[in-house]
Amino acid sequence: MRHRLLALSLALPLLTLTGHTHADEGMWMPSQLPDIARQLKAAGFKGRPSDLAELAKPPMNAVVKVGGASGAFVSGDGLVLTNHHVAFGVIQYNAKPERDLIRDGYIAADRGAELPANPDYRVLVTTGFDRITDRILEGARGKQGREYYDAVDSATKAAVAECEREAGYRCSVANMYYGTDFYLVRQLELRDVRLVYAPPNDIGNYGGEVDNFVWPRHAGDFTLLRAYVGKDGKPADYAPDNVPYVSPAHLQVSTRNVKEGDFAMLAGYPGVTFRHRMASEFANQIDWQLPSRVALYQGMIDTIESASAKDEAARVSYAAQVKSLKNTLKRAQGELDGLRRSDAAKVRRDDETAMMTWLDKQADATAIKADIAAAQVVLDRGAATRERDQLLGVIASQSQLLNSALTVQRLAHERGKPDAQRESGYQQRDEVLITGKLKQVQRRYSPAVEKALLTDLLTQYQALPAVQHVAEFDAVFGTTPAQLKAKLDAMYAGTRLGDEAQRLSAMQADHAALGASDDTLLKAAAALMPAVLRLEDESKVSAGELLRLRPAYMKGLIAFRQSQGRAVYPDANSTLRVSYGRISAMDPRDGVHYQPLTTVQGIVEKHTGAEPFNAPRPLLDAIAKGDFGSTAEPSLGNSSKGAQTVDFLTNLDTTGGNSGSPVLDAQGKLIALNFDSNWEAVSASWMFDPRYKRAIHVDMRYMRWLMAKVYPAPHLLREMNLPAE
Amino acid sequence: MRHRLLALSLALPLLTLTGHTHADEGMWMPSQLPDIARQLKAAGFKGRPSDLAELAKPPMNAVVKVGGASGAFVSGDGLVLTNHHVAFGVIQYNAKPERDLIRDGYIAADRGAELPANPDYRVLVTTGFDRITDRILEGARGKQGREYYDAVDSATKAAVAECEREAGYRCSVANMYYGTDFYLVRQLELRDVRLVYAPPNDIGNYGGEVDNFVWPRHAGDFTLLRAYVGKDGKPADYAPDNVPYVSPAHLQVSTRNVKEGDFAMLAGYPGVTFRHRMASEFANQIDWQLPSRVALYQGMIDTIESASAKDEAARVSYAAQVKSLKNTLKRAQGELDGLRRSDAAKVRRDDETAMMTWLDKQADATAIKADIAAAQVVLDRGAATRERDQLLGVIASQSQLLNSALTVQRLAHERGKPDAQRESGYQQRDEVLITGKLKQVQRRYSPAVEKALLTDLLTQYQALPAVQHVAEFDAVFGTTPAQLKAKLDAMYAGTRLGDEAQRLSAMQADHAALGASDDTLLKAAAALMPAVLRLEDESKVSAGELLRLRPAYMKGLIAFRQSQGRAVYPDANSTLRVSYGRISAMDPRDGVHYQPLTTVQGIVEKHTGAEPFNAPRPLLDAIAKGDFGSTAEPSLGNSSKGAQTVDFLTNLDTTGGNSGSPVLDAQGKLIALNFDSNWEAVSASWMFDPRYKRAIHVDMRYMRWLMAKVYPAPHLLREMNLPAE
Repeated sequence: MRHRLLALSLALPLLTLTGHTHADEGMWMPSQLPDIARQLKAAGFKGRPSDLAELAKPPMNAVVKVGGASGAFVSGDGLVLTNHHVAFGVIQYNAKPERDLIRDGYIAADRGAELPANPDYRVLVTTGFDRITDRILEGARGKQGREYYDAVDSATKAAVAECEREAGYRCSVANMYYGTDFYLVRQLELRDVRLVYAPPNDIGNYGGEVDNFVWPRHAGDFTLLRAYVGKDGKPADYAPDNVPYVSPAHLQVSTRNVKEGDFAMLAGYPGVTFRHRMASEFANQIDWQLPSRVALYQGMIDTIESASAKDEAARVSYAAQVKSLKNTLKRAQGELDGLRRSDAAKVRRDDETAMMTWLDKQADATAIKADIAAAQVVLDRGAATRERDQLLGVIASQSQLLNSALTVQRLAHERGKPDAQRESGYQQRDEVLITGKLKQVQRRYSPAVEKALLTDLLTQYQALPAVQHVAEFDAVFGTTPAQLKAKLDAMYAGTRLGDEAQRLSAMQADHAALGASDDTLLKAAAALMPAVLRLEDESKVSAGELLRLRPAYMKGLIAFRQSQGRAVYPDANSTLRVSYGRISAMDPRDGVHYQPLTTVQGIVEKHTGAEPFNAPRPLLDAIAKGDFGSTAEPSLGNSSKGAQTVDFLTNLDTTGGNSGSPVLDAQGKLIALNFDSNWEAVSASWMFDPRYKRAIHVDMRYMRWLMAKVYPAPHLLREMNLPAE
Repeated sequence: MRHRLLALSLALPLLTLTGHTHADEGMWMPSQLPDIARQLKAAGFKGRPSDLAELAKPPMNAVVKVGGASGAFVSGDGLVLTNHHVAFGVIQYNAKPERDLIRDGYIAADRGAELPANPDYRVLVTTGFDRITDRILEGARGKQGREYYDAVDSATKAAVAECEREAGYRCSVANMYYGTDFYLVRQLELRDVRLVYAPPNDIGNYGGEVDNFVWPRHAGDFTLLRAYVGKDGKPADYAPDNVPYVSPAHLQVSTRNVKEGDFAMLAGYPGVTFRHRMASEFANQIDWQLPSRVALYQGMIDTIESASAKDEAARVSYAAQVKSLKNTLKRAQGELDGLRRSDAAKVRRDDETAMMTWLDKQADATAIKADIAAAQVVLDRGAATRERDQLLGVIASQSQLLNSALTVQRLAHERGKPDAQRESGYQQRDEVLITGKLKQVQRRYSPAVEKALLTDLLTQYQALPAVQHVAEFDAVFGTTPAQLKAKLDAMYAGTRLGDEAQRLSAMQADHAALGASDDTLLKAAAALMPAVLRLEDESKVSAGELLRLRPAYMKGLIAFRQSQGRAVYPDANSTLRVSYGRISAMDPRDGVHYQPLTTVQGIVEKHTGAEPFNAPRPLLDAIAKGDFGSTAEPSLGNSSKGAQTVDFLTNLDTTGGNSGSPVLDAQGKLIALNFDSNWEAVSASWMFDPRYKRAIHVDMRYMRWLMAKVYPAPHLLREMNLPAE
C-alpha cells in the first residue's frame, strides 16, 4: 500500500488530499481549491470553491499583477486598486516641486486629469494558465547540469515565444514544486496606466519606516490607478486618446461590517517562499545568509546616507533606493529573529530526518534518495563562494550607471544570437523595459554616491580570500583600496552614460560600435563581461542540476506528507495563489495581546506633528468631528456610532509580492487590501509559524471614509458602486 | 441645607460620605476606611474595615517604613520584606570586589550571616497616630506669612520633641489636606537592619532602565531584611549581639491562586501627590516645570556620564546617582506625556471653575473665596524666580562635597540656637543621620565629576536674567564661564573635605572654628550661607501664607465634593495610606491590550545575554525544567501545570514611596509587593486617570518559587510559614 502511494506521488503532484494540519498555512494554486473544498467551507467560505479554480475566469481574473505586486479591478472601467507603496513610483514620477503629489496626494477630478505612470509600469491580466510539464521536460530528460538547464530554458523560451506571437500579451512559464511541474501563464500586458486617486503620503505611509512591519498599524496604504488601452481595445503605449480598459471582471467593495474571527481570503502574486527547501539550506540561511545580509545592507545604507548628507538633490535621487534597502535590511533582521524564535533550523532538520527515515522504508525510493544526496553535493559546492556571489550581486543591482553599462554590453552580446537563444531579460521583447529602466537612471543617480557605494562594496570584495577572486574584476577595479580609488575616479570622469541620450544610443549600438567606444564605463563593463558570463554559466550548471534533482526531494516530501494526510502547495513563485483564514488577534509576547482591528484613535495617539507621524490636518479634524457614518464598526469604540477602523490583522499566508492583494470575505466581497506583515512574521518566507504569522491589511471602510469624508471623490465612489458616506 | 453642609465642612474633614465616583481612586487614611466600608465590601474585601482603621494595631502595624519607602513584617522575628531597589543601598554597601552581592545576590545561611546595613538605614514601626490640629494651629491663628509658618513650625517641633523624649522613637507631624489637619505620628526607629536574602540584580532589576515604568515586566524586585534591637528589646545601633526584633504583627504570605479581577488592597507610605493642587499649579507643572526638568536632568546625566567616561572608579561612585537622575528624568517625561494625554490642565481648570461657581452660590463662602484669591497671588509671586530656584535646588542636592560643606556650615549656624528653634533636619536628633550621610560621600564622589556638574549648572545660572541673580552666588562662583572655571578649580584644589575624617571633624567644629578655617569649600559655603538663609526665609513667608490659605481651598473642595456625594482623601504625605481595587488588564493604546499577569516565559523572550536582559543561568535552567509546583497559576499557560507568574498589574492608587508596599488579597493575605507604576501612570501624582493608572507588583508566587527552586532558602520559607516547594 505504501509503495503504491509513493509510486503515485512520483507520477503526479498530489492535490486531492483532504487534510492539512497547519491551520491557515498555504498559498494554494486556485486549481487546488476544489481539492481542499472541505477545509475551505469549514473555515467559513460561502461560495463555491470550483468558482475560484480558474485563473482566467471571474473572479480570479479580477486579480491583477501591478508594478511587480498585486492589485484588483474594482470597476468595469479598468479601475485598479493597489497599495500606495506599490504605486509610489507612479506618484513620485508625477510629482514636481510645484505639484507635490507625494505630500498632498492626488484626486483626478475626471478621466482627463488621470496622470500617466512611468513608461515601464504595467498592469497584467491573466488570461491563460496551462500545465505544459511534458513539453518543457521532453528535451531535458536524460540530460544533466547545463544541458538540462538549457533544454528546459530552450523549451520555456519556445513556449513563451509561441504564446507571445499575439501582440499585447506577455507570457511566462511557472515552475511549480521546483521543476516538478511547469505551467504556461498568459497575461494581457496593459502599458498605459494612470494615477487616479492617492491619499497624502502621511496617510498612505503613516508611520513610515518606524511602523514598517509593525502592528498596531494605522496606514491608509491604498491608491487607485486605471488601465487604458487603444481605441481598438488592445494594449497600447500611453496616448492621450486611449480609452479605459474594459475589465473582464471586477471585485465589489463590501459595505458590511468586519470583525474579529470573520473569514477572510486573499488572492495575489506572492513572490517567493522557501518553505520546501532542504534542511541544509535552512541552516545556511540562518547561520550565514541573513546575518551577513544585515551587515552588508546596513553598510550600503550608511554609505549612501553619508555620501548624500550634504547634497539635497542626491538625497532625493536615492530616497527610493534607501527606502528599499532599509526595507530589505529590516526584513532580513526580522527573518533572522523569527527563524531563531521558531527554532526553524531544528524543526526543518527533524522534519527532513523523519522524511528520510520514512523514505528508507519505501521499496522504490532508491532513485529518489540518490537524487537528494546529489542535490546536497551541489548545494555544498555553491557555499564555497557565497561571500563573493553576494557582493557581486549587489554591485550589479544597487549601482545605477555601472548597471546601465553592464546592461548595454550584455544586450549587445545577446543581440549576436538568434532571439530565441538570447538570455531571458535580453530578448527583443525585453527591450522596451530596458529602455524604461535606462531612462529612469536620470532621476536616481549621483556620481559621488555611486562611487562611494562601489568603493564600500569593492573594498569588501578585495578583502576576500584569493580563491573567491575573479581575474576580470581584479583587473578592472584593482586589488588595493588605492588602486580602486584611482580606477573608479577615472571610470566616472570619463563616462558619458550620465546623459540619458548617451545611454539610449549606447543601447542601440551594435557590438562592434560598443567595442570602439572610448567611454570608460562601457569599456569597464566590456572587460567585466567575460567574467559575468562565465560566472553565470557556472551558476547555470548548478541551477540545472538542482532543477533536475530537486523534484526528487519534492516528490519525497509530497509522498511523505500524503502519508500524514496532508496536501502540499508549491512554494510561491509570483503566480496567483489563494490563502484563507480569519481576522485574528495575536499574542506577540508574554503579557501583550494585539487586537486585530485598529481605529482612527490610534492615528491621534501616534501623531507627533513630525514625520513619520504627521497626520494631515484634514484627517485630524475629521477624526475629531467623529462623522463616520456607514463606515464605522459598531462593535468597537465607546460611542454608539462605533469606531472608524483603519487596518486589520489576519492569519492569511502571505509573502512579498502579496502587497496590494485583495482580501475577500466569505461572500467574495472586497473587505481589505493587504500591504504588510507583522515583524514577527517576516520569517514566514521560510517557515510558517501559526503563533506569529499575521498579515496586515487596510480596511476598505477606512478607504471609503477617506474618499467620502476627508478627501472626497464622490465620482469614484459612484464608479465603485459605493455610497458617498 | 447647602449652607449647613458647607458650615460642617469647614469644621471637620468629611469622612463619612458613602460614594466616590472615580472607582479605585484614593489613598485613604486607614481611619477613613470604616467610613467607606460599603464601597470596600462591594469591591470584594472580606475582612472588617474597622480592623484596618488604626495604624498602631494589627494588621496595619505590620506595615513599616523602610529606607524611605515601604515594607512589611513577614515573620514574628523582625523579618521585613521590601523591594530589591529599596534595599539596593544595603546590598551595594555590603558588596565588595570579592563578594559581588549585586551580581550574585545573597542568602544568609543563618542569622549570624545576616549583614549589617549602612548606618543611616532605618526600619520605622508606627506606634501612634493622633490628631493634634488644635495644638498645632493654636499659636498660628490670627497670624500671617512667616509668623504663621513659625508658629506652626514651633508647635510642630515642640510636639515632636515631647514625643521623642522616649528614647528609640522618631516622631513627626503629618499635615493633612494642606494645613487643614495635623497628626502626630510616633514611630519606633529600628537602627540595626540586616540583609537576609537578595536575588541577583539580574533578577531583582531584570530589565533595568529599559524596563523601568514598563509593562509587561519581569523583575523579581524583592529583598528580605531583618530588624534587630538590643538585648533589652529596645532600638540600638548595630552590635553583633543584638537580637531580632519581635514584630508586633506580621503578614502571612498567601499560598492561594491569584488571577485577573481578584480584589487587591495595598498599604504603604506614598510620598507626595498633588491631586488637590490649584488649577494654576497644574498649568505651571505642565507648561513649565516638567519640560524644564526634563532638559535639566538630561543635561546632568550627560555631564556626569561624559565626565566619568574614562574613569571606572568614578563611574562606580556615581552609578547610584545617575540611576536616580535617570529615574527622575524618565518619570518627568512620563508625567508630562500623561498629563497632556489626560488633558489635565483643562480637566482641573474646569473642576475648579465648577467649584468656584458652586461656592459663589453658598451664603458663607466669602472668607473662603478671599483666601483662595490670596493664595493665587502668592503662587504667582513664586513663579517669578522659578528658573533660579530650580537650579539652586539641584546645585545643593546633586553635589556631594559642596553639599557637605553647606551642611556643615548650616549645622554650625543652627547650633547657635536652642535645639527646639533649630531648622528641621539640623536638630540634635538629626545629627546621627547627617553623620551617616557625610560618611557615605566617600563612596559617591569624584572631584572631576562634581566640578563638571557644577560647571554645567552654574553656567545655566549665570545665563539667567539679572532679576533672578543672587549676589552671594555671583561673588562665590563669578558671573562669567571663565570666572566660574577659575573659582571652581581653586575651590576643589584647596579643600580637604574629600577626606572623611575632615568632614566629620568639620561637622563637630563650632561656628568660630569653621569661620577660621582656610578650607576653600568651607569658606565658599560660609559665603553662600547668608543667601541660603535669606532665600529660605523668603520661601517660608510664602510657605506660611500658603499654609494659612490653602485650607480654604481644601474646605471649599471638600464641601463641593460632598455636594456631589464624594469623599476626599488627603494628598499623599508619606503617612500610611490604603488603596483598594483589583488585578486589572489595561489598554495602553489603540490595538494593544496588556494582560495583567506575566510569566517566566517572558523572561526567556526578553533574555539577550546582555544587561539589562541577562537572566542568570540557574533561573533559565529552572524555567526550562518547568518545575513550578504549588507556585504556578493554573489558569495560565499551555501546560496542565499552569504557568509560573512573575509580576502583575492592579489598578491600585499608588505613587513614589509606595515601593515595597504589601499587596493583600480579600482575606488580608500577602499576594504581592508593589514596586513600580506603568509608564502611562506616572502622571497620577497629579491626576488619577482610571484608563491608564496601574501599579506593578512582584507576585509572591515568583518569590516563593525562586526561594524554593532556584536560589533555595528553605529556612526562610519555614520562618514565613511557607511550603518549601
